[in-house]
Amino acid sequence: MEDLLQPGQLLARGVCRHLATLGYASLTEFVPDRGLRVDVIALGPKGEIWIIECKSSRVDFQTDRKWQGYLDWCDRYFWAVDTEFPVELLPDETGLILADAHDAEIQRDAPLSKLAPARRSTLTRKFARTAAERLRGFTDPRPSQIYGV
Amino acid sequence: MEDLLQPGQLLARGVCRHLATLGYASLTEFVPDRGLRVDVIALGPKGEIWIIECKSSRVDFQTDRKWQGYLDWCDRYFWAVDTEFPVELLPDETGLILADAHDAEIQRDAPLSKLAPARRSTLTRKFARTAAERLRGFTDPRPSQIYGV
Repeated sequence: MEDLLQPGQLLARGVCRHLATLGYASLTEFVPDRGLRVDVIALGPKGEIWIIECKSSRVDFQTDRKWQGYLDWCDRYFWAVDTEFPVELLPDETGLILADAHDAEIQRDAPLSKLAPARRSTLTRKFARTAAERLRGFTDPRPSQIYGV
Repeated sequence: MEDLLQPGQLLARGVCRHLATLGYASLTEFVPDRGLRVDVIALGPKGEIWIIECKSSRVDFQTDRKWQGYLDWCDRYFWAVDTEFPVELLPDETGLILADAHDAEIQRDAPLSKLAPARRSTLTRKFARTAAERLRGFTDPRPSQIYGV
């Protein structure tokens, strides 16, 4: 399994495991809006929405031109990096999670910037529908018969 | 696969496939509230919430003491039965879906009884978290290492 995952995906796995212990359900590779795709989105017990971008290297971070666009789609925004990552590169006003493939830990909490209710509702619905559709790909893996693709 | 599923679960599979063609994402065995467990809950593109109970036989229907409790947890309520089922048993003011293990069709639409916004929001969040947690059971099937169970 580990061989099949990219470094960023391994960090995401550790992040999702840690988020589960905090009561957050998470999805990877989620599209909050056209043209945006976040590594991890997490939904808390009270409806809190967090976005976590996983960066496996300095280059991976420096070539990211989209992350500021993610801030408008969550209550809190975090980076997840491994212990080798030069964390001084990361902007102060974001959260920081130290992760590996197996677990993670929140190093610095992210500032709260609360979503407007309408956007939270849209995002939660999209999260729900995406998760259920992916789940059905596992429990009833025969979409070709339905959609004719 | 079919050998492992009960008759009601096979109907649920056909129902979920049909709901997908209507743009509804669905989950089986969902718990909207303590003591309640519905066969299928579906979430539409605009946030519509449907509940579908799958009945494989007359006895299965007649021994159901809980279904009226489900009406308060959806916008529309349907029964799903196969073509052998004595549909005259089913109350008029509910929707009717004819299903088999492979597909389904809405025979009679269900009356609309719109959920209050707060309940819709709670249900959607619970749907989202349940789906994501089950999905993680497939994509990272090692919860014992996290929860210590």
